Amino acid sequence: MKVGILGGGQLGRMLLQAAANYTVETYVMEQDENCPAAHLCHHFIKGNIQDFDAVYNFGKNLDAITIEIEAVNIEALEKLAAEGKRIYPSPSAIKIIKNKIHQKEFYQQHQIPTANFIVTQSLKDVEQHIHFLPAAHKLAEGGYDGKGVQILQSKNDIVNGFNAPAVLEKSVAIKKEIAIIIAVNDNNETAIYPCAEMVFDPVLNLLDYQLSPARIEEKELWKAESIALAVVRNLKSAGLFAVELFIDKNGEVLVNETAPRVHNSGHHTIEANYCSQYDMLWRIILQYPLGNTKSILPSAIVNILGAENYNGKATYEGLNDVLKMDNVFVHLYGKQTTKAGRKMGHVTIMSNDYTDLIHKANKIKHTLKVKA
Amino acid sequence: MKVGILGGGQLGRMLLQAAANYTVETYVMEQDENCPAAHLCHHFIKGNIQDFDAVYNFGKNLDAITIEIEAVNIEALEKLAAEGKRIYPSPSAIKIIKNKIHQKEFYQQHQIPTANFIVTQSLKDVEQHIHFLPAAHKLAEGGYDGKGVQILQSKNDIVNGFNAPAVLEKSVAIKKEIAIIIAVNDNNETAIYPCAEMVFDPVLNLLDYQLSPARIEEKELWKAESIALAVVRNLKSAGLFAVELFIDKNGEVLVNETAPRVHNSGHHTIEANYCSQYDMLWRIILQYPLGNTKSILPSAIVNILGAENYNGKATYEGLNDVLKMDNVFVHLYGKQTTKAGRKMGHVTIMSNDYTDLIHKANKIKHTLKVKA
Repeated sequence: MKVGILGGGQLGRMLLQAAANYTVETYVMEQDENCPAAHLCHHFIKGNIQDFDAVYNFGKNLDAITIEIEAVNIEALEKLAAEGKRIYPSPSAIKIIKNKIHQKEFYQQHQIPTANFIVTQSLKDVEQHIHFLPAAHKLAEGGYDGKGVQILQSKNDIVNGFNAPAVLEKSVAIKKEIAIIIAVNDNNETAIYPCAEMVFDPVLNLLDYQLSPARIEEKELWKAESIALAVVRNLKSAGLFAVELFIDKNGEVLVNETAPRVHNSGHHTIEANYCSQYDMLWRIILQYPLGNTKSILPSAIVNILGAENYNGKATYEGLNDVLKMDNVFVHLYGKQTTKAGRKMGHVTIMSNDYTDLIHKANKIKHTLKVKA
Repeated sequence: MKVGILGGGQLGRMLLQAAANYTVETYVMEQDENCPAAHLCHHFIKGNIQDFDAVYNFGKNLDAITIEIEAVNIEALEKLAAEGKRIYPSPSAIKIIKNKIHQKEFYQQHQIPTANFIVTQSLKDVEQHIHFLPAAHKLAEGGYDGKGVQILQSKNDIVNGFNAPAVLEKSVAIKKEIAIIIAVNDNNETAIYPCAEMVFDPVLNLLDYQLSPARIEEKELWKAESIALAVVRNLKSAGLFAVELFIDKNGEVLVNETAPRVHNSGHHTIEANYCSQYDMLWRIILQYPLGNTKSILPSAIVNILGAENYNGKATYEGLNDVLKMDNVFVHLYGKQTTKAGRKMGHVTIMSNDYTDLIHKANKIKHTLKVKA
């Protein structure tokens, strides 16, 4: 079977590592010939995944196509789907999720709990809703990795907002942020991964590390799972989906956002679960049975980000110290250059002991630095 | 760092899956452009790994070279080593192991327990040693996957032997066959994997499945580990080594043979150990610290071999039934054609319960068939 991936970043790289357990023939399209996935596929095609002709020509001789980023040309995928190509996720699901206004309206339409919001077209619109602050202002399209989001605490912050279509989302008193990955196959069978929890640095408001399975109350887990399932069922698409949710101070669960693809919150499944999220997506695409989502051991993920004030050819300080640790798994994405905050790799830690996970996660964060 | 692999089979494929966790730039040389490793490296070079010029030209611009098969041009590797290239394992270690006469003499020279043997140059030589039968006649060079070995029970079998340099090895009353993988880095530090045991089909005398850690007496384990370590220390080479041993009916431990590379007996380490044998070899080559060899859970390996009487484009019967099993990991090597006995893939099973491992191993053997 010939399967194409639109996008050649680290998610594509890890998908291709998993693909080599099967007989699938892989194709990748991406502009950057030195991207993390370029050399791990059978066929690399240099091209713009946002361009209609490029995507259509890439897909027309393949059996199936998947994405590793939402910023792809949907019209080309719709035409390919109409011609009988299998697309994971469906173009209609990408369309809903790609635009934050559509995504929020989708939750509302299906009575899926999510933070209250107002659609704004310009900063003038935002000024009409000062009573709604504090809120997060989220650009409808083109946001990525924290870009395209501004927290507006009060009137004075409005200048930081977006003078373009956006969602103004009322701030929630968050107790915990969690994520649930769900797989859906062509027969509408689903498999739910154990819930993961994000632990944030209270000072920097940056994701510090992630733990899985999450330490949350069973009632909260039930709510979260049923909400995540409702999101995925209503998207009416096969594929792999990551649903990010908030648990608020009252124990209510709200959807934050959904990704219709393999996701940063599922990296640990490579080592820590019987079927990794990457293996699971191949099972869906190749029409094999869904895999076992269970944890083998609890795990943590630490993201390796480019250090502040370093730009250029990446070097990894402290790597040997991390590789010496007993139960850690290092993944570097092979990006040639670093810049502040760029995702350069991740480290998974496995242990039955959450104290050990947290201790090692903190140690790794303070040990491993990407400089230039 | 630029690292080359001589050979592009399944061991190369799995090495390259592991390489993508690091920033190494990979090169593979192999004659067959459709070999399992061809599309997972940065640079594929079509060439004959037994040819001096091909190997020398392949290696001269690299930082380090490793092998996934012993049948390589050693003179070229010696020249490259003399010019400062790092070679894992050293050419001298490959030289000892590649020729079964040298290998047996090496064990003898270092007082390493191994079955008694006689060197034979022709069938006439064998006829001089009828008193030595039953014995295994092993071709000095070029044997592979059971080819190049003939069991000579008595005088009448001698015609099946080799009229070429070979080893006549006295048959041992075997209680169990085991294997130990040992890693050695440039600083002569070593790391020993848990011992694995081979379970043979008593009727077909074929490897049925493998279990790890082995169910053997502690005393036998100590002997086996100290013998395997003696083998590796005397080879005086960094690299990854698989030492295959017999435990005889008296509990004595004898070396069968050694492979100076990643090995079939270590496939399970991908999922079932903190540091896989593939990851370990990269750590050695990239001069990172050695990894943790411990088991996460006990495991079994079932090899997926081409079924008898099928030649041609491979199809996998029963694959869905195996993929439905909860704690199994399927690895297909992507070989386009099958033939009887060809290694087409393997399945790893993980469980705390050896009965579950054995039950599933048998089930997989009877379910998954490679046909054409």
